[in-house]
Amino acid sequence: MLSEFDLIKRYFTRRQRADATGRTVLGVGDDCALLAPTPGMQLAVSSDMLVEGRHFLAGADAFDLGHKCLAVNLSDLAAMGAAPLGFTLALALPSAEPAWLDGFSRGLFALADAHGCELVGGDTTKGPLNVCITIFGELAPGTALRRDAARAGDDIWISGTLGDARLALADALGELVLPEADRLLAAPRLHAPSPRVALGRMLAEGRLAHAALDISDGLAGDLGHILAASQVGAVLDADALPAGPALARQSQALRRRFTAAGGDDYELCFTAPARNREAILAAGAQSGTPVTRVGRIEGEPGLRLVDGNGAPLSMELRGWDHFA
Amino acid sequence: MLSEFDLIKRYFTRRQRADATGRTVLGVGDDCALLAPTPGMQLAVSSDMLVEGRHFLAGADAFDLGHKCLAVNLSDLAAMGAAPLGFTLALALPSAEPAWLDGFSRGLFALADAHGCELVGGDTTKGPLNVCITIFGELAPGTALRRDAARAGDDIWISGTLGDARLALADALGELVLPEADRLLAAPRLHAPSPRVALGRMLAEGRLAHAALDISDGLAGDLGHILAASQVGAVLDADALPAGPALARQSQALRRRFTAAGGDDYELCFTAPARNREAILAAGAQSGTPVTRVGRIEGEPGLRLVDGNGAPLSMELRGWDHFA
Repeated sequence: MLSEFDLIKRYFTRRQRADATGRTVLGVGDDCALLAPTPGMQLAVSSDMLVEGRHFLAGADAFDLGHKCLAVNLSDLAAMGAAPLGFTLALALPSAEPAWLDGFSRGLFALADAHGCELVGGDTTKGPLNVCITIFGELAPGTALRRDAARAGDDIWISGTLGDARLALADALGELVLPEADRLLAAPRLHAPSPRVALGRMLAEGRLAHAALDISDGLAGDLGHILAASQVGAVLDADALPAGPALARQSQALRRRFTAAGGDDYELCFTAPARNREAILAAGAQSGTPVTRVGRIEGEPGLRLVDGNGAPLSMELRGWDHFA
Repeated sequence: MLSEFDLIKRYFTRRQRADATGRTVLGVGDDCALLAPTPGMQLAVSSDMLVEGRHFLAGADAFDLGHKCLAVNLSDLAAMGAAPLGFTLALALPSAEPAWLDGFSRGLFALADAHGCELVGGDTTKGPLNVCITIFGELAPGTALRRDAARAGDDIWISGTLGDARLALADALGELVLPEADRLLAAPRLHAPSPRVALGRMLAEGRLAHAALDISDGLAGDLGHILAASQVGAVLDADALPAGPALARQSQALRRRFTAAGGDDYELCFTAPARNREAILAAGAQSGTPVTRVGRIEGEPGLRLVDGNGAPLSMELRGWDHFA
């Protein structure tokens, strides 16, 4: 029988990595972890809680789940333009299953190592499966990409592609049946999203973008948070929204719906002045992240969808609400 | 019907307090919160996850629960000697009940305000009741009260009293029946513990103590973590352990058991050189926290319990293990 302390020691305690930044003074195993933030930098903090049956399906692959739980937090840092520092992991488990813990911790640490983001502490308890990660990053004062900073006249940009995660979910839920090749294309977007940390940092450090957020509940709903916080409106070209490769083979109606209001995309939506177009395309290329211009911020409140010819589109586009 | 965003706005978003420290640059409502740590200070971070049926009984009073969830995190800062900065709250709820949310948030903020510790962000989702708080504090480099710093010859100290929380749990579980007056004394120790933040800071800032931790799983088990991390042993006078006022009226056997291995005490256990006795008593008086000397760190490994006459005691003293 694996005890709580054995579990932490075996799966979640590692030696200091040779390439560690040295900002972790004291890691897993004391009442608190101790970090040494860079003097003068601001600390960005975000928490996400993932619950079985809500954020991931029962029986989800443990490696993918370890990846995804950290990915959604890294995506919040990316949306702020912060450089990852470290994270805490609180885990409620129905039982201590070595095979599951092995897969989960490997998925988690593979992504953590790719971003130089160290596990510094946390908590483990028995309970219905629940993963809560709190992540810390840092950025220079005044460079954060906030939701309240969009200005009329800004371009609206999207990183990567949208909708393949929602398409994979539709397939998993039996809403439609994907050809095997498309399933293989789309499923990783649902189970193992790639947080756009490098692009977010370049947008912030280069002061290229005004506002940004990461798209987790669907573009239209999430863009609505920028519009509300910035007290502006937007026009969005539904046919310019970059569909994922599997979704691109579906009908126009499904493409429009899943790109504009899919969910689980973990791409960045950001606004930027037109003068930065060249620099943003260069940042996209340098960070290996495609970027696409999809609309414009306007002074008039509200979100207006148009088709490729500029004609108004009427679509029901609700964001995800956990208590609706 | 209360939506997720209404819920956050109504119960968990507040205007900046007039007496806020100004270290929160951006609070609830963006992808990340932004904090401005004091340059040169270290950041102390801790996460605790509380699950219904494990850490609190189903139907627990919402106000008390809001208090307790933050108190156990503040207690981790206290054990490190850190000054509270802020915290994130991730909450899984079976449903959005206004009366529960009102009580929970009032209990949470009452304690947060008492410690100048601001809610800076978090997450809300539907799911089996689960509260995960991550707390941040700061302290000067080199002053942290670590578990690995106990030295042979140190006194062992306890703040406050032990065992009344365990006694209240025994009463709630029907293991015994307390007289009403004792129930009223003991229950607050279980449901609304007082984190020893002021004492912890004085011990750290004055460099009065070597090692410290907070007692959550029972003194004997928790002290074992200090002994293991510091590679030392200890002798503990079971009859010197300060019993809570309700427990003090119980049998000697129960007093010894619940003080030495109760749980949920959230008192500090710390070790300190004998030359600091006067200063520690003064810090206890100044912070309004009784402190009691209960034993001594020795070079020989192992934890040895003795009675008031120094005669060895043999007691089964296991700490709490969530997966045992």
